[in-house]
Amino acid sequence: MAEELSSVLQAVRQRVEPTDAEHERLEQAAREVIDRAEAALEERGIDGDVMLVGSTARNTWIAGDRDVDVFVRFPPDTDRETLESVGLEIGHAVLPDGHEEYAEHPYVVGEVDGYDVDLVPCYDVKEATAIQSAVDRTPFHTEYLQARLDDDLADDVRLAKAFLKGIGVYGSDLRTQGFSGYLTELLVLEHGGFRPLIEAAAEWHPPVRFDPEDHGAATFDDDLVVIDPTDPERNVAAALSTANLARFQHYARELLADPRESLFEPADSDPLDPPAVRAAFDERGTTPVAMTFETPDLVDDDLYPQLEKSLDGIRGLLDQHGFDVLRAAAFADERAVLLFELEVAERPAIERHVGPPVHVREHAEGFYEKYADSDVYGPFVRDDRYVVERTREFRTAEELLESDAIYEVALGTDVESALRSAYSTLVGPAVSELTANFGTELARYLDPKP
Amino acid sequence: MAEELSSVLQAVRQRVEPTDAEHERLEQAAREVIDRAEAALEERGIDGDVMLVGSTARNTWIAGDRDVDVFVRFPPDTDRETLESVGLEIGHAVLPDGHEEYAEHPYVVGEVDGYDVDLVPCYDVKEATAIQSAVDRTPFHTEYLQARLDDDLADDVRLAKAFLKGIGVYGSDLRTQGFSGYLTELLVLEHGGFRPLIEAAAEWHPPVRFDPEDHGAATFDDDLVVIDPTDPERNVAAALSTANLARFQHYARELLADPRESLFEPADSDPLDPPAVRAAFDERGTTPVAMTFETPDLVDDDLYPQLEKSLDGIRGLLDQHGFDVLRAAAFADERAVLLFELEVAERPAIERHVGPPVHVREHAEGFYEKYADSDVYGPFVRDDRYVVERTREFRTAEELLESDAIYEVALGTDVESALRSAYSTLVGPAVSELTANFGTELARYLDPKP
Repeated sequence: MAEELSSVLQAVRQRVEPTDAEHERLEQAAREVIDRAEAALEERGIDGDVMLVGSTARNTWIAGDRDVDVFVRFPPDTDRETLESVGLEIGHAVLPDGHEEYAEHPYVVGEVDGYDVDLVPCYDVKEATAIQSAVDRTPFHTEYLQARLDDDLADDVRLAKAFLKGIGVYGSDLRTQGFSGYLTELLVLEHGGFRPLIEAAAEWHPPVRFDPEDHGAATFDDDLVVIDPTDPERNVAAALSTANLARFQHYARELLADPRESLFEPADSDPLDPPAVRAAFDERGTTPVAMTFETPDLVDDDLYPQLEKSLDGIRGLLDQHGFDVLRAAAFADERAVLLFELEVAERPAIERHVGPPVHVREHAEGFYEKYADSDVYGPFVRDDRYVVERTREFRTAEELLESDAIYEVALGTDVESALRSAYSTLVGPAVSELTANFGTELARYLDPKP
Repeated sequence: MAEELSSVLQAVRQRVEPTDAEHERLEQAAREVIDRAEAALEERGIDGDVMLVGSTARNTWIAGDRDVDVFVRFPPDTDRETLESVGLEIGHAVLPDGHEEYAEHPYVVGEVDGYDVDLVPCYDVKEATAIQSAVDRTPFHTEYLQARLDDDLADDVRLAKAFLKGIGVYGSDLRTQGFSGYLTELLVLEHGGFRPLIEAAAEWHPPVRFDPEDHGAATFDDDLVVIDPTDPERNVAAALSTANLARFQHYARELLADPRESLFEPADSDPLDPPAVRAAFDERGTTPVAMTFETPDLVDDDLYPQLEKSLDGIRGLLDQHGFDVLRAAAFADERAVLLFELEVAERPAIERHVGPPVHVREHAEGFYEKYADSDVYGPFVRDDRYVVERTREFRTAEELLESDAIYEVALGTDVESALRSAYSTLVGPAVSELTANFGTELARYLDPKP
């Protein structure tokens, strides 16, 4: 018999609620970072302040999370160069072993007492609509939610985050294209809890729109629109993909129909070994082909959109040449992989080429003369047109993928550079070599979940 | 250097002009038939008359032609049954060794002095628009042309017929879908000769319309419209296919650009033997498949449209299941053949099946439940929909052609009966067996001319 939803939620609640000891450790680490940052500001005589943001600030973090996000706010008249250089200086002072990362501007990430710390400089603007840099918005989000999330709602935010992580759609980065923490919190707040959110989501008919402050000042094409309470012109759900919204609806119904804790726990597939991969494609009767190349040196938010764009471009090229693609996927670590699973891997030696209508004399004569003495079948007449059957340029998908034709489709800029420098093509059973790095990804590919 | 058109035409003219001796023999045979028919009418006390029609009557027949068409015209108040029964009676009296054939109504064909004689009963109506049977029109055509074709034009009609026969588009039967004798004569008459007709045809932009008597009373969708001078509501070119009109235009240009006698002589390909057929398909890299069955007992005008309809239906079925058809053809003698040349003869074990959008809750849940526990890959989410990869019903074209799925497409009625009774499927090299009966057809198929 199915478990009760309430007892499932109760069990998850207990698992995701940090212990008092965890709270204390995190607060200590956060305090330490803030103190160091304040000292660094003072040392430099800067009239700024330091603010803890994100889920640690709002008490919506999940047991086991080890992230501390701290913003250093500079006066709004600071020039951009100073903000960047002094911001990094302070970052390195706070996190002596840290390294720089780059979003709209650079910042420092490092470790304090086992916590992953982001130390981000921003401008201390009066309101969210006056931001000078995208990150300036974050403190407003924190303030908005701190004022509205009571302990019960914070508990439910934890449930929601655990659920979204469990079903694989948590994170608004361009690899995941899922729900950001801020979006999750706004949705729980809007619906008054996790359960009402799930019950509503099960019935949504996208496009779905929420505007908590009733101040939306723009229209959006997205399937889910949540107007930012701190910025009437921004959709907080802009990064969410159509598929991930559909997945959320699917699993919301699953949770209601058959409540179970496993939905709150990411279930990663066991990696496949080469024989298992070969057997799986054999059983499907398809031909897998893969292009592998050195992964361009980019942050994920740049890399994955480029991989997806390249995947789409080459998929289109394969389809256009008759190598029907059943499914495709991109994987990356040090090497990147574009994998295409083909229904048809080989075509005849010839292809049909339809010419102009016979009655359009000038074109028709040109076409006929071009082909009459060349090595083709025809020209012959079908309906009102000349037709020839001429030698096909690419008889196998491998020939196509190893030709310069791949550069004629839209590829990510850095992916194109990487391909031009060097790539390998794997066909059929050879694709099983990919298990060396992507055994889990292949397992997930070959046993797809919603 | 190219021959002169005029000397080519002169040479052809000499070849196709019947000799005086031929004329005499044919006139004798025709006289004999007419005499016998008149005697048969008189014997039965019928107030009808007998008329020589067709190219023999109009002196537009080609040397070597051995056709005599004689019409027996009954008073218009004769009832249909009498016309049919007495018509046949007279037919058998005139042609004691003849047999019956059937168009709109039955008639007798037989041989007299080595000539093929058609003896057709019809109604002696006052004008072509008052016809009671389609054949009643023929005497009017003969009268119209006899009054207008002088000897020079009759010579040019012979050239035109020889040309249309040479390029394979002469005959308005539903197998050929070409130019009837009457259409050919009207076109030569309209243009004032063969050469002006060819020069005009080289430039035609279909739809092309002629109305010699300027009395057309209907519109037609056909590419070539020639309003019947004896019937304002009839297009004499209705049976002409788009492709055959285009072929006529193509060869008209050929004749002008490179005049040669060979264009006036049907060039039949040498039949291929089995190894040649296998080698040819090998070189093309395609997979031929053929269905063979006993040819339904039908006249060509019924058989060939049924074969074409069946060919189209099954071609669509093959395409729909991913067995991409490059080209297809139907042949028939005692056995009929539907031949399909495939670019893809095998598909994977699975096929993609796209379900409803996830947000359409009732349908989506129904789809998910149907497939969640069945032996498919998925359901998984792509864009806003569920997708599964399920077992494909037909992995090879052979499996498909040997299944009852062929009866779900539009087939000719009698072809369907023949198939339901029995058929064989030939795949790949086995198709070379067809050379036993269709070596010439396969040669033509594998070396297509305009």
